[in-house]
Amino acid sequence: MPSLLLKLDPARDLVLEREVEVPPALVWAAWTKPEHLSRWFAPDPWTIPTCEIDLRPGGIFHCVMRAPDGKEYPNVGCYLEVASEERLIWTDALLPGFRPATDPLSTTIVALEAHEGRTRYTVTAMHPDEARRLRHEEVGFRRAWDAALDQLASYVTSL
Amino acid sequence: MPSLLLKLDPARDLVLEREVEVPPALVWAAWTKPEHLSRWFAPDPWTIPTCEIDLRPGGIFHCVMRAPDGKEYPNVGCYLEVASEERLIWTDALLPGFRPATDPLSTTIVALEAHEGRTRYTVTAMHPDEARRLRHEEVGFRRAWDAALDQLASYVTSL
Repeated sequence: MPSLLLKLDPARDLVLEREVEVPPALVWAAWTKPEHLSRWFAPDPWTIPTCEIDLRPGGIFHCVMRAPDGKEYPNVGCYLEVASEERLIWTDALLPGFRPATDPLSTTIVALEAHEGRTRYTVTAMHPDEARRLRHEEVGFRRAWDAALDQLASYVTSL
Repeated sequence: MPSLLLKLDPARDLVLEREVEVPPALVWAAWTKPEHLSRWFAPDPWTIPTCEIDLRPGGIFHCVMRAPDGKEYPNVGCYLEVASEERLIWTDALLPGFRPATDPLSTTIVALEAHEGRTRYTVTAMHPDEARRLRHEEVGFRRAWDAALDQLASYVTSL
């Protein structure tokens, strides 16, 4: 999808921009293979006991996060755009197969750009309204995504 | 999207299947050009004063229906899949650019299949829950889509 179609709104959206020391091919692999994603996506000490990826529009993205107390938080949605090593878009507003969900939080866009062997990495979370943007911010959007990205870089370097 | 990804559920979905006397190319044109769609999509005596189509995933589908009493009912969503003369999928669970909407009703799939110069035409509306399927049924899903399809066939024959 041409990026001009994405219309961001500071009142409803959250954005994290960083550069990481690994190339886009490795970041892409980390994002798109369950055996990789489950190793870095949950900020330590949380873990990911279940991860399912069907990498095509309408395909499932299902990820269970387990808290240190053992409680599990499932997330399920579907992919909307899969542009290899460039952009991955998914949403929890639609279940796999594009069925509308009942209580959406966000559509997430992970954008990658090669830069001298490193990756310019941008995560954008678009919410239906300001209340949900605030809720997402308060549960630690920035801290969690920052920590996860550090874990990603460290994990893929060990591959 | 392979159709196997679409998992229908009789409790939450509505389906209309018919055959029409016009070929898929004309049905597709009727569905994808605003100047055509505005001529047949609203069951008479309703009309369509505004119709906007950006035919790509994430692109706008915006259509205002005007009741005989002048009251207007806007519908806005975005396309999810555009497979020329075969399948068109859009949803009101996502606004243009994939932003989650606040009160989704349905994802709609229009599927076309050529059959001896005619078109096997299937409309499927997938809802988040049974309550919204019922609401959609009660406001006249079947009657409206049936009437609109008759209008489509009659309109494209005149082109």
